[in-house]
Amino acid sequence: MIFSSFKINSEEKIHLQIEQHIKDNIEKGILQKGSKLPSTREVSKLLGISRNSVVISYENLESEGIIKSLKGKGTFVSIESKVVNGDLTIDWENMINDYGSKCKELDIIKTELPWKKGMISFKSIAPDESLFDLEEFKRCFLNVFSLEGEKLLNYGYAKGYKPLIEYIKGYMQKKGVDVEGKDILITNGFTEGFDILLSSLTEKGDIIACEEPTHNTALKIMKCHGLDILSIPMKSDGIDIEILEETLKNNPPKLLYLIPSYHNPTGIVMKGEKRHQVYKICEKYKVPILEDGFNEELLYSSSHVPPLASLCMKGNGIVYIGSFSKILFPGLRIGWILADEKLIDNLESVKRARTIHCSFLDQAMFHKYMESGAFTRYMKKVRKHYKDKYNFTLEQVKKHIPHEYILGEGGLHIFIKLKGVNGREVLKHCYEKGVVFMPGDVFYNNRNGSETIRIGFSRVNEEDIEKGIKIIGEVVKDLGI
Amino acid sequence: MIFSSFKINSEEKIHLQIEQHIKDNIEKGILQKGSKLPSTREVSKLLGISRNSVVISYENLESEGIIKSLKGKGTFVSIESKVVNGDLTIDWENMINDYGSKCKELDIIKTELPWKKGMISFKSIAPDESLFDLEEFKRCFLNVFSLEGEKLLNYGYAKGYKPLIEYIKGYMQKKGVDVEGKDILITNGFTEGFDILLSSLTEKGDIIACEEPTHNTALKIMKCHGLDILSIPMKSDGIDIEILEETLKNNPPKLLYLIPSYHNPTGIVMKGEKRHQVYKICEKYKVPILEDGFNEELLYSSSHVPPLASLCMKGNGIVYIGSFSKILFPGLRIGWILADEKLIDNLESVKRARTIHCSFLDQAMFHKYMESGAFTRYMKKVRKHYKDKYNFTLEQVKKHIPHEYILGEGGLHIFIKLKGVNGREVLKHCYEKGVVFMPGDVFYNNRNGSETIRIGFSRVNEEDIEKGIKIIGEVVKDLGI
Repeated sequence: MIFSSFKINSEEKIHLQIEQHIKDNIEKGILQKGSKLPSTREVSKLLGISRNSVVISYENLESEGIIKSLKGKGTFVSIESKVVNGDLTIDWENMINDYGSKCKELDIIKTELPWKKGMISFKSIAPDESLFDLEEFKRCFLNVFSLEGEKLLNYGYAKGYKPLIEYIKGYMQKKGVDVEGKDILITNGFTEGFDILLSSLTEKGDIIACEEPTHNTALKIMKCHGLDILSIPMKSDGIDIEILEETLKNNPPKLLYLIPSYHNPTGIVMKGEKRHQVYKICEKYKVPILEDGFNEELLYSSSHVPPLASLCMKGNGIVYIGSFSKILFPGLRIGWILADEKLIDNLESVKRARTIHCSFLDQAMFHKYMESGAFTRYMKKVRKHYKDKYNFTLEQVKKHIPHEYILGEGGLHIFIKLKGVNGREVLKHCYEKGVVFMPGDVFYNNRNGSETIRIGFSRVNEEDIEKGIKIIGEVVKDLGI
Repeated sequence: MIFSSFKINSEEKIHLQIEQHIKDNIEKGILQKGSKLPSTREVSKLLGISRNSVVISYENLESEGIIKSLKGKGTFVSIESKVVNGDLTIDWENMINDYGSKCKELDIIKTELPWKKGMISFKSIAPDESLFDLEEFKRCFLNVFSLEGEKLLNYGYAKGYKPLIEYIKGYMQKKGVDVEGKDILITNGFTEGFDILLSSLTEKGDIIACEEPTHNTALKIMKCHGLDILSIPMKSDGIDIEILEETLKNNPPKLLYLIPSYHNPTGIVMKGEKRHQVYKICEKYKVPILEDGFNEELLYSSSHVPPLASLCMKGNGIVYIGSFSKILFPGLRIGWILADEKLIDNLESVKRARTIHCSFLDQAMFHKYMESGAFTRYMKKVRKHYKDKYNFTLEQVKKHIPHEYILGEGGLHIFIKLKGVNGREVLKHCYEKGVVFMPGDVFYNNRNGSETIRIGFSRVNEEDIEKGIKIIGEVVKDLGI
């Protein structure tokens, strides 16, 4: 407080000294308009002087209009400091480093056409929130909160909420993955998982290989980390095996990033045999795989396609990054990394140095939701729902949009290669007609894919799907002439 | 599915071809034990053959014990693949980069003495969860969930939940901070805020200045980023002004990190006049300040000490990192950065590239809790509670632990400089007697502070405080002889 360093001299009246001290502090800008003064009792006690002297000085200052005492609230400075504080002004934009600049430059939300009310948007592949079981979720909250609310609101563990970790281990085992010698780190969705992995395993200039096209967020994160990206083209059944082998042989990357199921953006599901070939090639060249479990849960077909990670029985060379964000509660930001336990032990420290841990309340609610059977019921419902919607959208696309080919077998989006028509050009015209979608080039490295577009249908109703697809089709036809 | 690439030849019986195809796939390891086969209906439809042929082949394989059909569930492979998959084995520990290794090496949780049941722990400065208002919090959940549950569970915005951002802006204004031209980014607590700032503004080898001692997590993050740390010693009233000026003059750092209120670990509150001096020096040398608002909310004294950020009226040179984690719901991981709006605009993109956003449900509950007045009632209660506990602990420390000096004026911890006794040595002996605390050296750069210890009392009851402090005192006395 302002009197801590105050020293009384014996030659002047005490109340005058106090008045001057307060005036000086206002002058210097230490006490600002609205600053609360210590109480007269506190000052007298601190300085060891009679309270009366302090009361007098406060009264004098108040009569001069410098301070004002409010009943029951205290005494406050009522004038502006005369010193205008110098402005410590920093040119932040200039201070942002290469990483920060890239994050902004590649942040498509900052550059894309702004959404307007009433538009039909095929941009998103987020789940349709109207399908969420709110009542079930509420029950999960009330249940975990009454059991361990206090604990959940205090600090937890970097690795994650133990029952959720155990649950996901079992869940991955059911998918055919051998979890012995492996462990799980709970992350803020896929994004944090992938970012932590690249931060911990790669250096600027390192080579990373991936499918072309690939998940735009993954591509952005790889670029932000300054990695040298080797894009391996896809065929209609997934990654080109020959080019993959050639790449791994001649230019071995540090990591291979793959999306085997409902690949984003093409929607291709890599078949069992191909998964096996990919795995064998990586084994041959000793290249670890980062497997993006994206939308694996949405497999509509009855036949189970086990993740790549299931092929690596006793090995540790596949890191599986999981997330339910495209199906369930993305707002909670819960994902996971399943990997070698020693690697997880290290990544846990990285997680602790970055975000400490994910919300424990969210993790506990999520766990309860999974474990209670609500998830299974929900999945049954949404698989049917999205499958029907997929078929409907596909039909509309085939009918209305002239295309070279259409890729995908389900999921929440359809990927279209146009015939000699630029996707961004189509978008520009569609935008004027109130329809937006994802131009395909954001999924390509080095500005490829200019004639592709991605149609996400999860949050659009059938009527709008039909209307929107027709509009896109008309624009494509007009531009194609 | 496994029949996608299957081609029928006309020379052999179809059911035999199907049997062989399934056996081949098991042989190659594409179908593994437990893999589900497509239904006979699906296969017949896909291949355009009679369902009967498929049924016969499945029956034959089942009689050979190769597959097994479970009523109502489907047909599954029941034998192990003969191919043992080669193991893709990676030496992950060797692959971890410098950043990842430092995160682990500096992760004190990995190296500290393990907590055992029944121990008295003065290590934590987390809030006492038994003080949380669970009923109020539950009401907040029910309220926001019924209003906008669906929305909150779906994707939100990287910058944060708008009502929370607006609330915190008002909250900072009440602290005297001019928020014009400034904006807020919601982060996963202080840790993510600080990490995002360093990631975006600094390069390996850049100079950063801070108090010595300082917050151990901040110190860890600075070291993980490979920064050159200039530690400026503290006096009993805070940072040494002369050394600060000398440092900024001769060796200008890119950033100055400060904890002005209830400094961690010393507990010192920098007084108004000193804050002014610090600000003036930074203005003179144009060094931006990262102000850690740590525990500012806990100020027990009646006189309001505005944050450093309030001195920078029209300037943009102070970035304020806020968090309630030491008082309220740290498990939710909610903090914020208040800074120049252009800087926030860029940091928002960095946040999006790392964790997309913080849990929207948590942000909404937190906002409701703040806005409903529950926070004010809670703060009133805990200020009194912690103040009493602080005074009690201080009394015990003064009485039982021989010391050179004791620092701090409140908060949730007490910092002690011993007389010629090593803090880690004391800890080793106390551990055997069931008492742990924080050795002070973790708050120092370059292994200083070996004779200091930090006593966190927030989660220890009075009886244990007395008992624990007595034990520490005895050990110190024994070692001091």
